[in-house]
Amino acid sequence: MSSDSDRECPLDGDPHQQEMVPSKKSAVLVDGVVLNGPTTDAKAGEKFVEEACRLIMEEVVLKATDVSEKVCEWRPPEQLKQLLDLDMRNTGEPHHRLLELCRDVIRYSVKTNHPRFFNQLYAGLDYYSLVARFMTEALNPSVYTYEVSPVFLLVEEAVLKKMIEFIGWKEGDGIFNPGGSVSNMYAMNLARYKYCPDIKEKGLSGLPRLILFTSAECHYSMKKAASFLGIGTENVCFVETDGRGKMIPEELEKQIWQARKEGAAPFLVCATSGTTVLGAFDPLDEIADICERHGLWLHVDASWGGSALMSRKHRKLLRGIHRADSVAWNPHKMLMAGIQCCALLVKDKSDLLKKCYSAKASYLFQQDKFYDVSYDTGDKSIQCSRRPDAFKFWMTWKALGTLGLEERVNRALALSRYLVEEIKKREGFKLLLEPEYANICFWYIPPSLREMEEGPEFWEKLNVQPGLRLISYTCVSAFLSGARARDLTNNQRWPQPLRSG
Amino acid sequence: MSSDSDRECPLDGDPHQQEMVPSKKSAVLVDGVVLNGPTTDAKAGEKFVEEACRLIMEEVVLKATDVSEKVCEWRPPEQLKQLLDLDMRNTGEPHHRLLELCRDVIRYSVKTNHPRFFNQLYAGLDYYSLVARFMTEALNPSVYTYEVSPVFLLVEEAVLKKMIEFIGWKEGDGIFNPGGSVSNMYAMNLARYKYCPDIKEKGLSGLPRLILFTSAECHYSMKKAASFLGIGTENVCFVETDGRGKMIPEELEKQIWQARKEGAAPFLVCATSGTTVLGAFDPLDEIADICERHGLWLHVDASWGGSALMSRKHRKLLRGIHRADSVAWNPHKMLMAGIQCCALLVKDKSDLLKKCYSAKASYLFQQDKFYDVSYDTGDKSIQCSRRPDAFKFWMTWKALGTLGLEERVNRALALSRYLVEEIKKREGFKLLLEPEYANICFWYIPPSLREMEEGPEFWEKLNVQPGLRLISYTCVSAFLSGARARDLTNNQRWPQPLRSG
Repeated sequence: MSSDSDRECPLDGDPHQQEMVPSKKSAVLVDGVVLNGPTTDAKAGEKFVEEACRLIMEEVVLKATDVSEKVCEWRPPEQLKQLLDLDMRNTGEPHHRLLELCRDVIRYSVKTNHPRFFNQLYAGLDYYSLVARFMTEALNPSVYTYEVSPVFLLVEEAVLKKMIEFIGWKEGDGIFNPGGSVSNMYAMNLARYKYCPDIKEKGLSGLPRLILFTSAECHYSMKKAASFLGIGTENVCFVETDGRGKMIPEELEKQIWQARKEGAAPFLVCATSGTTVLGAFDPLDEIADICERHGLWLHVDASWGGSALMSRKHRKLLRGIHRADSVAWNPHKMLMAGIQCCALLVKDKSDLLKKCYSAKASYLFQQDKFYDVSYDTGDKSIQCSRRPDAFKFWMTWKALGTLGLEERVNRALALSRYLVEEIKKREGFKLLLEPEYANICFWYIPPSLREMEEGPEFWEKLNVQPGLRLISYTCVSAFLSGARARDLTNNQRWPQPLRSG
Repeated sequence: MSSDSDRECPLDGDPHQQEMVPSKKSAVLVDGVVLNGPTTDAKAGEKFVEEACRLIMEEVVLKATDVSEKVCEWRPPEQLKQLLDLDMRNTGEPHHRLLELCRDVIRYSVKTNHPRFFNQLYAGLDYYSLVARFMTEALNPSVYTYEVSPVFLLVEEAVLKKMIEFIGWKEGDGIFNPGGSVSNMYAMNLARYKYCPDIKEKGLSGLPRLILFTSAECHYSMKKAASFLGIGTENVCFVETDGRGKMIPEELEKQIWQARKEGAAPFLVCATSGTTVLGAFDPLDEIADICERHGLWLHVDASWGGSALMSRKHRKLLRGIHRADSVAWNPHKMLMAGIQCCALLVKDKSDLLKKCYSAKASYLFQQDKFYDVSYDTGDKSIQCSRRPDAFKFWMTWKALGTLGLEERVNRALALSRYLVEEIKKREGFKLLLEPEYANICFWYIPPSLREMEEGPEFWEKLNVQPGLRLISYTCVSAFLSGARARDLTNNQRWPQPLRSG
C-alpha cells in the first residue's frame, strides 16, 4: 500500500486552498463531512468478511454433502419473523451480532445444496461455479462494455459460441439474461421484430392481431411474455399435446390455418424441450417443417431440457433443434451453474439482436472507442447493468470438461430410470407416464383408495385428499412439487387419461 | 455425517431387487452409470473452494483499499484472448490450473472496488453486502415461494417496507428485480394495466396509440421499455428540459394536450430523479399536479437519485416523490449494495402488481398451501427464478444503520462539492453547470483552444479532439464516462448553452 498520505485525500491538490473549514490535522471539511478521513474501518471490515466466509464454509459448503443435516428448519411466516431480527434501525449492529444474524439466516433457509433437496428443477452444489460466483461478487462487475468488463465479455462470447456449437448451428449470437422467462420474452420480441421491424418504433397499435403458438404444456412464462410485450395472453394459442405431453404437429398446423382465417397474424411458434411438469419434448423436426411452410419464427424453450444436448446418448431428445431460430437454455438447472445462468441463443448473424434491442445510449456505447466496439454487447440487452452469468458456467466447464458435463446429464437420467423402476414395484405408487427425461410423475394412492376402480369417483377422491398432489420428481435437478390433477395441464385433459400407470 | 451407507444410495430400497447390473461392492448400475458411487470428490471440492476463497480475499478484498494497485491491467480484446485460456475442452483442468485461471481473471478484470475506479455510477467495497452476496451464492436460493425461500422473502418484505417509508407512502408494494431498466419496464406495464386492464389479455392491437412522457434527459431504458412492451419508441414523448436538465412542467402539459389532440392516449409520465449524465432532478410536485389533472400514472425513475432519500439534508431533491404511483430505486449505486439491487416500489395496495403480472402457475403457486400464500410473491414477477437481491441491502442497513447510510450519501455529495470547487480554480477545466447531485460535468479544454472564443468554431474543435469528451464525474459512485457534446441530450439542445461554465 502506498505510504503517501496525500493519496487518502479524495482529490489531489492542496486542501488548504479550498473554501472549506480546516479542522485539526488538515481535515478537509465540506458540508459537515470530513473528506480526507477514512470512510470505513477497512481492517475491521476485512476481518468481518474473513469470519463470515469461515461461517459460510462451515455451515453451508461443508454441510452440503451431509444427509444427516436438515434441509430446512421450517417455520411459518409469523413465527419466523419473531425468530429473526429483521428490523432496520437507526444505528448499526456490531460485527458479532451480524455474524449471529448470518447464522440465523443460514439456519432457517432452505439448503438447496442438500442431497435431500427435491424441488424446483435444480439442486446440489457445484464447487467450481460456486468459486466463480464468489469471484463475481468480490469483483462486482457489470457487463455492458468491454472497457469495464473485458474478461467477462470474452468469457460470455466463448460460452455462447460453445453452446451454439452444441445446438448444431454454424454460427449465431446470444445473450445471458436473468432467467428462462426473460429468454422467452427476448425471443418473442425478436420474432416480432423480424416479422415487422417497424413495431420497434411504431408499436402494435393499429396492427393486425399478432398470434403465437405453443404447447398446452409450455412454461407459464409464455403467457407472462405475451402480456408484458403487449401481445395479450389471449393471443397465445395453446396447441393440444399427446398423452406424453408433446405438441401434436397436426394440431399446430390446424391452429395456424384457423388463426389466419380469423385475420390474425401468426409470427411465432414456441416449442418446448423439457416441459416443467412432465418433462416432455416437442417434436422439433415436424414443428420446424410447419414453421418453414408458414414462414414462422421457431423458438425452442429448452430452459430445462437443453442440458441434454451435452449428452451424446440423450441429445436425440432435441432432434431438429438446429432448425430453430432461437433457443432458451438454462445451465443453472441440470448443469448446476447456480441461479441464474440462462442464455438466449439466436441463429441469426446479421446482428438482429442488436438491431432489435439497441437504444444507442451515447454515454455508454460511443462508436469511436479505441477498441473493437462489437464487444460492447450491452446494447443487445434489455438491461443496463448485467451480471456475468456466463462466467460460472465457464468455470464449471473448465473444471469438468465437456465429458464431465455429459456425465452429469447421463447420471441424472440414469437416476430417473432407477426411480421409475422403484415406483413400478411399490404398492400405493402409481406412475403417471413413462418419462423420457428426468421428470417422474406419480401418485401416491392412500390405502383407502387402493381397491377402488379408477373411475370418476376415484379421481375425485384422490384430488380432495388434503395435501395430496401429483408428484413430479426430477433427478439431480430434483423437483418434488405438485399440481392437483385438475390443474395439471393448460388444456385440462387430465385427470382421466392416466392409462399409462 | 451419517454412517449408514444406505444413505449414499440415490433412493432407499434394496438395489439387488433392481433390473440392473450389479458390479462388485453392490454397485447400482443403470445405463452405464454407477448410481451409488460418489459423484464428486467432496473433500477435494471443499479444499478448492477454500483455496479460491483465500485467493479472492488476498487479490480482491484486501487490495480493494490499496490505491497503489492498478484499477485494471488493460488489454485489447484480441490480446486478452491470447493471454486467457478461454477454450472449453473435452477434459477438465486440475485444481491448481483452475486457481491460475482465477488469478488471471482477477488480474485482467476491472477492480470496481478500487479507490480510483471512476465509472458507471457505482464504486467501492461494502463489506456487509459482500458477505450477504457470498451467503446468497452458497445457499443458491430462488425467491418465488415462501416454502423455498422463507428467510429471503421476509427480508424482502422488510426492506421494501422500509424503502416505502422513506418514499413517504403509508403503505405500498414492490419487487426487487434485475435492474433499473427492468424496474422502468415494470412500471410502464403497470401504468398500462391500470389504464386498461384488458390489455393483459387482449394486447394492444386495435387500441388507440398509447403515449408516455418523459424528460429529454431520461435514461435510455425508457426507449427500450417502450419498444419491448409493444408501445413503440415513437410513442415516448421527450419533454424539453431547462438549462439544468430538469423537465419543464409547462412543456409536459403542452405535450399532453398535443397528444390528446392527435388522438393518442396518454397513460404515463416518467419523471427522473437523478439523470444519468447531468444528475438532474425533475420537479416532482409540479409534475404530480399535472398527472393528477390528467389522470396519468406518475412513475419516478429514481434509480440513481433515490439514495438521496436516506439523507435528511438532501432528500429535498426528491420533494413530492410521495405523490408518485411507482418509484424505481437502485441501492446498488450510491448505497453500494452490489450489482444488482434494484427495487420497483408501488403505492397501490390493492394487489395491482399481482393482478397485472400473475400467470397463476399451478405447479408453484397452489392456493391451498399450509401457510399464508401471500408470501409467495413470485407471481408478481416477470421472472420465475429470482435472486434475493434485497438481502444484501438489508445486511448493509443492519450493519450501518439508517444513520450510516445517510452518512454515505452526505459524504458523496460533499465530495462532489469539493470537486466542483477544484474544477473552478483550475486552468483548462470548464464546469458545464453547477451540479445539484453527485454528477459533475466538465470539459477539459486543450491549451490550443483556451484563448479561443466560445463560438461555433470552438465547440466544433472541442468535439473533434480525439478521445476528448465531456466528462461526467460522480462521487462515491464515481462515474467518469463521456458523451460528445452533440450526443449529450436527446433533444439536441447542447452544444451551445454552456453558459454556466
